[in-house]
Amino acid sequence: MGNNLLKGKKGIIFGALDEKSIAWKTAMRCYEEGAQLVLTNAPVALRMGEINKLAEAVKAPVIGADVTNMEDLKNLIEGSMKHFGGSFDFILHSIGMSLNVRKGKHYTEMNYEWNQKTLDISAMSLHKVLRTAWDMDALNEWGSVVALTYIAAQRVFPDYNEMADAKALLESVTRMFGYYYGVKKKVRINTISQSPTRTTAGSGVKGFDGFISYAEKMSPLGNASAEDCANYIALMFSDYTRMVTMQNLFHDGGFSFTGVTGAVIEQMEK
Amino acid sequence: MGNNLLKGKKGIIFGALDEKSIAWKTAMRCYEEGAQLVLTNAPVALRMGEINKLAEAVKAPVIGADVTNMEDLKNLIEGSMKHFGGSFDFILHSIGMSLNVRKGKHYTEMNYEWNQKTLDISAMSLHKVLRTAWDMDALNEWGSVVALTYIAAQRVFPDYNEMADAKALLESVTRMFGYYYGVKKKVRINTISQSPTRTTAGSGVKGFDGFISYAEKMSPLGNASAEDCANYIALMFSDYTRMVTMQNLFHDGGFSFTGVTGAVIEQMEK
Amino acid sequence: MGNNLLKGKKGIIFGALDEKSIAWKTAMRCYEEGAQLVLTNAPVALRMGEINKLAEAVKAPVIGADVTNMEDLKNLIEGSMKHFGGSFDFILHSIGMSLNVRKGKHYTEMNYEWNQKTLDISAMSLHKVLRTAWDMDALNEWGSVVALTYIAAQRVFPDYNEMADAKALLESVTRMFGYYYGVKKKVRINTISQSPTRTTAGSGVKGFDGFISYAEKMSPLGNASAEDCANYIALMFSDYTRMVTMQNLFHDGGFSFTGVTGAVIEQMEK
Amino acid sequence: MGNNLLKGKKGIIFGALDEKSIAWKTAMRCYEEGAQLVLTNAPVALRMGEINKLAEAVKAPVIGADVTNMEDLKNLIEGSMKHFGGSFDFILHSIGMSLNVRKGKHYTEMNYEWNQKTLDISAMSLHKVLRTAWDMDALNEWGSVVALTYIAAQRVFPDYNEMADAKALLESVTRMFGYYYGVKKKVRINTISQSPTRTTAGSGVKGFDGFISYAEKMSPLGNASAEDCANYIALMFSDYTRMVTMQNLFHDGGFSFTGVTGAVIEQMEK
Repeated sequence: MGNNLLKGKKGIIFGALDEKSIAWKTAMRCYEEGAQLVLTNAPVALRMGEINKLAEAVKAPVIGADVTNMEDLKNLIEGSMKHFGGSFDFILHSIGMSLNVRKGKHYTEMNYEWNQKTLDISAMSLHKVLRTAWDMDALNEWGSVVALTYIAAQRVFPDYNEMADAKALLESVTRMFGYYYGVKKKVRINTISQSPTRTTAGSGVKGFDGFISYAEKMSPLGNASAEDCANYIALMFSDYTRMVTMQNLFHDGGFSFTGVTGAVIEQMEK
Repeated sequence: MGNNLLKGKKGIIFGALDEKSIAWKTAMRCYEEGAQLVLTNAPVALRMGEINKLAEAVKAPVIGADVTNMEDLKNLIEGSMKHFGGSFDFILHSIGMSLNVRKGKHYTEMNYEWNQKTLDISAMSLHKVLRTAWDMDALNEWGSVVALTYIAAQRVFPDYNEMADAKALLESVTRMFGYYYGVKKKVRINTISQSPTRTTAGSGVKGFDGFISYAEKMSPLGNASAEDCANYIALMFSDYTRMVTMQNLFHDGGFSFTGVTGAVIEQMEK
Repeated sequence: MGNNLLKGKKGIIFGALDEKSIAWKTAMRCYEEGAQLVLTNAPVALRMGEINKLAEAVKAPVIGADVTNMEDLKNLIEGSMKHFGGSFDFILHSIGMSLNVRKGKHYTEMNYEWNQKTLDISAMSLHKVLRTAWDMDALNEWGSVVALTYIAAQRVFPDYNEMADAKALLESVTRMFGYYYGVKKKVRINTISQSPTRTTAGSGVKGFDGFISYAEKMSPLGNASAEDCANYIALMFSDYTRMVTMQNLFHDGGFSFTGVTGAVIEQMEK
Repeated sequence: MGNNLLKGKKGIIFGALDEKSIAWKTAMRCYEEGAQLVLTNAPVALRMGEINKLAEAVKAPVIGADVTNMEDLKNLIEGSMKHFGGSFDFILHSIGMSLNVRKGKHYTEMNYEWNQKTLDISAMSLHKVLRTAWDMDALNEWGSVVALTYIAAQRVFPDYNEMADAKALLESVTRMFGYYYGVKKKVRINTISQSPTRTTAGSGVKGFDGFISYAEKMSPLGNASAEDCANYIALMFSDYTRMVTMQNLFHDGGFSFTGVTGAVIEQMEK
C-alpha cells in the first residue's frame, strides 16, 4: 500500500522501541503514506540506540521526553512545532510500563508506589501530552490522537495485572479529553484495542505465549499483527475518519465479540 | 480525496435511493477510490428512476432485488459475478423500512404482521444476502461487509420505534455471521452506527428535526454527515481494516460516549 | 431462606416445564417468599402434565397460553386478574424455542420460516405479553417484569445459533417497552443473563456439556445454578429493586467480565 | 421493609458522613435487616461528629481510618474482627474525593499531584481495603463487597471532571480483585452506579442542580433516591445475590439505557 493517505499531515510518534514495536511500524506506515514525523521516547529507551535507524528511514528528528515530566513534554512540543514550521495533525501514544509486572508482583500484593508510577506513565501521560498540546495550541483543527490499549480494560486477563487498571484509566482520559478537545478544536481522540502482539514490551507479561495462542484460537480472523495495527492507526490519522471520536476501537480479528470458538471447545474437551 | 484506496476492489451497494442517501454517496466515494460497482435496490425504489443517474456516474449496472426474496438475491449475486467476471470484495447493506413507523403506529400498539416484515427487510435481509454470497462462494478472501445501524439498538430513542429492535437484531446477525464467515474465509462483517442523517428515509421518523438538533448539541464534533459516513465506509472496504470484524463502529462525532454537554445543560436550564 | 420478600405480591410465571426449569424453581421461591401465583405455559407443554405438581405445591391455578397468540394472552391476563381479584405485580418470561436448533440446521443454513417462529416465540412474545398487560392495565405501579436471556446476545457462542439473535431482539424489546412502561406506570422491565443451566430446554443445544464445563472454568465463582437464579429473580420482583430498569443483569459467577482464567490457559497449554 | 435479609451477617460501612449519605442510609437499612456493623470514615470526617448519632442508632463502634494508609486499614480490620469475634461478610466502599473539583480546577488544567491523591482516595483505596482483608483473611466465604460509582466512568459528564477517571479506575479494580477474590474464596465484588444524589459530597460538583434535573427528565422512573440505593446495596450483601460478581450495576431509574426522552426533546424545542 501507500496511497498518500497522509499527504501533508504531520505528527508525533511516541514509543518506537525497536523493529517489533507497533509504534515503529506505524512510523514507517505513516511515512509511506506521505506524513512528516517527529519521533520520541523516554531517554532510557533512546539510549538503546535502535530508534536512530528508524529516524533515518522516515527522515524524522528524535526528541527525547519523559512523558511524566511536563517540562520535557513542553520541550518536545516546542521542538516539534519548530521542526514542522507550526502546528501539526496527529499523535500516537504507544506507552505502557508496569513496575509491578516487571518485578513479578502479584496483583493482590502490588507495591503502591510502583502502581502510582504505572498509572502515571501508562495513563495520565496521555493527559499530560494532550494538555501540553492544548496549552500550546499545537494541534490543527480536525487533528487526531490515538492511544494503544488492551481489552483487559473491559474484562479480566489475570496476568495483565495492574496494566488492566492503567488501560481503563487511559480509556477514560481518552473520553474526557476527547470531549473537551472535540468541542474546542474538532480534535478527535480514540484508543485502539489491539490483539496481543509479540513486541519487546508485550513479551514482559507472564504467560504471554500461552495467552497469544489462546487469543489466536478465539479470534475468527486470528490475531491482528503489528503491521495490521499500523495500517489501522494510519487510517485514524487520515481525513477518512474525521467524525470518529472518544471511541475504543477493537482491532483484534473479532476476539472481543467472540464468546467461544469451536477450536477452544475442542481443546477444552481434551 | 481519492487515493485509490479501493483499486481493484469490486462490490455491491444496496440502498441508493436518491442523492441524499448514504448509499448513494458511498457509491460515488468507492468509485472515486477506484472500485467497480453493482447497484441494487428494491424494485419499487428502482421505479423512482433516480438510481439511473448514479449508475451512469459510477459506470455500474443496476440489478433490482427484493432483499427478502432468496430468488432475487441469487439472481443479483449471479448477475454481479457475471459483471465482475468472478467473485468480489465488498457489500454495503443500507436497508431499513418500518411499516409501523410509516403508518404512525405507536411502539406499544404495533401491528405484529408489519413488525415481522420490518424485521425481515431491515435485519434478516443481511442474513439472506450473506447466506446467498456464502452459498455461491461469491466473496473473496478478506472481503468486507458493512451494514448501517443506529444507536437506538443500544439505548432507547422512543420515536425510533420498532426500528430499534430491528437494528439490535441486525447487529446480532452481524456478529453471528461475522464469526462464521471470518473462520471460513477471512471475510469481515461490521456495522456502522451513524449520526442521525437527513436522508429521505430518515425523514420518515417522527420528531426527526428536534432529534437532529439534540444530537448535534450532544456531539462534541457535531453530527457526522452522509459524506463523512461514505468516507468511513470506503475505508472499511479497504485493506487498511482487514482485522476489524464483528464490531459496531460508532461514527457520530462522539455522541455515543457523551453523557451530557454544556450546550444541553444550558438548554435544560431555560 | 424465605423472608417474606414478596408478601402481598402477585404474579404470573411463564415457562415452568419440569423440576429442572428455572421458572419452576422461581415459582417455588416466590411462593416461599409469600407471593401468590398464576402458572402458565404453552398448551403442548401443559399436556406433559408435570406442571400440575408445581401448581399444587404453590397453590396456583394453571392457565395455558400460546405466547404468540393475542387471544390466548388476553385470556391469560383476564383469568389471572380474576384469580387475584385485580391487577398484579410481576411477570417472569422464561420462554425460548428454536426450531432451527431443534432440527439441527446450521446458522448459515437456517430455514427462514422457522426463524420467524423462533423470533416470535422467543422475543416478540415479550412484547405481546407486555402489550396485553398494558392494554388491560393489569400491572400495578412499581410492578416488575423479568425475562431470561443469555450472553450470546452480546458475544458469539456458535452453537447457540439463531437463539443469539432472538435474545438480542428480546433485550431490545426489554429496553423499549421498559421505557414506555416506566414512564407510564413506574413498571420496571429487565433481563437476567444466566449461566448455562442444565435444564431440559438448555439440553437441546449441541455441544452443551462441553460448553457448560468451559463456562464453569471461565467463571470465578463457577456457574450459577437454577436455584441461585430463582433467588435473584425473586429479588427483582421485590421492592428492594424498584429503581432498576431496562438493564441486562448478568447472573453468571463473573463469566461476563472474565477474559480468561488460569484454568482455561492451563487447558490450552495441554 | 425489614425482612431479616442480613440476619447473622456482619460488615463494615465506609463513608457515612451525615444523614444524607448513601452510606448512612445503608447502615440504617442493614441494621434493620439484622446485620451487625462497624462504621468507619476518615479522621477528618469523624471530627464533624455526626457519625456518633448513627453509631448509636445502629449499635456499632466507629473506627477511624484513612483509606490510603495501610496501617490504618490494618487497624480497622483488626478492630472489626475483634468486635465481630472473627471474620465478617460485607463491606461498603462509599468513598470519593476530588481535590481538583473542590478547588475548581478545570479538567484540562488539573493539578497532577492532587489528581494522584484523587485516584488514591477514590479508587486505589478499594484495592487497599480488599488487600488488607485478603491478607488477614477477614472475609467469609460468599462475602460481598460493594463500591459506589457513577456513569461518568462510561460516558462524559464534563463537570464530573477527574472523578470520571477515578470511577473508571475503581470499576477496573472491582473486576480485577473480584476475579482473584472469587477464585480464592467465593467473595463477590461489584459496583453500583447510582443516579446523581443530593448528598453533601455530591453537592460539591459544579452545575449539580441543573444536572440532577436533567437526569430526572432522562430517567423513565426518575432519579433513584439514597434510600432506594440503600435497599439495593442491602440486597447485594444478602445471600440472594451470591453469583453476581465483577459487575457494574446501574441503579438509576433507567437513565443508562435511555438515549433521549420526550421530556428532554420538548425542552430542546423551546
